Amino acid sequence: MSDAYARAGVNIDAGNETVDRYRAVTADWRHPDQLGELGGFSGLFRLPGDGSRALVGSADGVGTKILIAAHLGRYDGVGRDLVNHCVNDILVMSATPLFFLDYLAVGKLEPAMAAEVVRGVAQACRDNAMALLGGETAEMPGLYKAGDFDLAGTIVGVVDIAAIPDKARVVEGDAILGLPSVGLHTNGYSLARSLIAPEEYGQPFDATTYGDALLAPHPSYYADVRAIQRVADVKAMAHITGGGLIDNVPRTLPETCTAVFEQTRWSVPPIMDELVRRGALGHEERYRTLNMGVGYTLIVPFMDAAKALAAVPSATVVGFVSPRAPGGPAVIVHPARA
Amino acid sequence: MSDAYARAGVNIDAGNETVDRYRAVTADWRHPDQLGELGGFSGLFRLPGDGSRALVGSADGVGTKILIAAHLGRYDGVGRDLVNHCVNDILVMSATPLFFLDYLAVGKLEPAMAAEVVRGVAQACRDNAMALLGGETAEMPGLYKAGDFDLAGTIVGVVDIAAIPDKARVVEGDAILGLPSVGLHTNGYSLARSLIAPEEYGQPFDATTYGDALLAPHPSYYADVRAIQRVADVKAMAHITGGGLIDNVPRTLPETCTAVFEQTRWSVPPIMDELVRRGALGHEERYRTLNMGVGYTLIVPFMDAAKALAAVPSATVVGFVSPRAPGGPAVIVHPARA
Repeated sequence: MSDAYARAGVNIDAGNETVDRYRAVTADWRHPDQLGELGGFSGLFRLPGDGSRALVGSADGVGTKILIAAHLGRYDGVGRDLVNHCVNDILVMSATPLFFLDYLAVGKLEPAMAAEVVRGVAQACRDNAMALLGGETAEMPGLYKAGDFDLAGTIVGVVDIAAIPDKARVVEGDAILGLPSVGLHTNGYSLARSLIAPEEYGQPFDATTYGDALLAPHPSYYADVRAIQRVADVKAMAHITGGGLIDNVPRTLPETCTAVFEQTRWSVPPIMDELVRRGALGHEERYRTLNMGVGYTLIVPFMDAAKALAAVPSATVVGFVSPRAPGGPAVIVHPARA
Repeated sequence: MSDAYARAGVNIDAGNETVDRYRAVTADWRHPDQLGELGGFSGLFRLPGDGSRALVGSADGVGTKILIAAHLGRYDGVGRDLVNHCVNDILVMSATPLFFLDYLAVGKLEPAMAAEVVRGVAQACRDNAMALLGGETAEMPGLYKAGDFDLAGTIVGVVDIAAIPDKARVVEGDAILGLPSVGLHTNGYSLARSLIAPEEYGQPFDATTYGDALLAPHPSYYADVRAIQRVADVKAMAHITGGGLIDNVPRTLPETCTAVFEQTRWSVPPIMDELVRRGALGHEERYRTLNMGVGYTLIVPFMDAAKALAAVPSATVVGFVSPRAPGGPAVIVHPARA
């Protein structure tokens, strides 16, 4: 198991130690308007002048997907990936995006390439009805090789504090809805790049090419989630990013509940099957490293599931909430194929 | 002249072309709450529920100062540099910081190093009475060499729209106040690294070492600026970053005015003189590449200058606003020594 994590570029021990150290070095200061972990979420700041609402901030990058994009000279997609990733990250708090700022770092500034990246950012901001408020472009030849670049961004949204989902309301028997992923989104690329060589990017794969399958866009789930919220009581939501279903869904559950997924209820994108095959990924590895076809989950009362599916035809019931056995796992995915 | 710019890592043509292209690719979308260039400033978004105030967002990095920090294993300073740089960037709009988010990218995640960076970020957030609302740490061995890292951040503040400085109020005879810089802050490091080799960082220089002089912290001017605003009518402000006095001060002037600086009125930090000497920088080059000792400028009525200097003893009158000759420069620095 540790072998696949290492191949995926995931150093779990270093990550956990870093989180502990961050907690220590940030423990001595908290702004009075910074809100505690409401519903398990952080990144909330009381809206100036309105105690019933909060600003929500989140920062993220696109990871090593950019190395594939740089190799293929395809730049606008990573901008969209970044924005949509950030939109989904604050959507789990039910936040509405307000504005976005990007940071683009390059080894050598090529105006056409930089503009393609920002074009993608700007289009995704428009598609999510959010302002592109600013950004920074840094040319650092000593840090990045010519042709290499990094891209990160920060989103700010707003939410009614009373509307923030509360995992404490989740009970046994609730249905778990899944919104389909269309590929790796922005996670698992260090693993994917270790299994699929750049020379293969142009070769045919599943009616497309390996390169296109790897660069498939990270969608925004904003419209689908709002459509479901209009007809169903959404109790908790997870954006399935690094850590997959296994690490992301527990944050949406009380400690008395287990999420039981039944993989026969959704389709696994072919590129995931290919990575599983090439990497001989075990059952847990694949659901912790890749999204495996589920990009976003929503927990709703069983009685609301049918209305939700009618509102968003691409949604499926991917599992159910069950009682958690003492010391048992928070997430189970059936069938265990490996 | 172009030689020194190239050594400084500044490709002016590529930079200008990139800005033009950004304008083109972002032209077709503007959020209704995004405010136009108020007082010449962008990055403003109407505060939800309060039309008299605006949120202000700004993103930035610390540039290649991080390569010197990485070489010397000194990590907490760059976090402070980044936060203070961002605070000053929105302070020119008279904005009060609310919260900050950081993005740290590394080749190999070393928890102690990452925590030192974030410690500096957190301490500077506390010193500026701002929340550290979140952040992202990305490990990307394919993009960064082990030991290398990049650091960027986004600040969000709030401002009374009526309090945003308006350069249209600047008139001939106004005094220009300067707040002292303590070093390069976060600009000119590509030039500095081309002139001072890593082997010299540990060698003595001006009662310290080259390394310490190069890593001198970027200060926050928040307290000083607020102290001056309490006693003087501050009409316009500039944060002297990349581009120096020559490129940053014109944004604070109407087209009928020239800022005339008299360098005998302030001290140039020794590290600047050293870079000027080693690089044989011409007069304009030095004032466009380096801050040359002035980190922040404020334009006030002549009659208010004495009160401002009494409120902030480190401030000095560094120049005056004069009529601009037709086709003449927006900034003049006397004496022209080269």
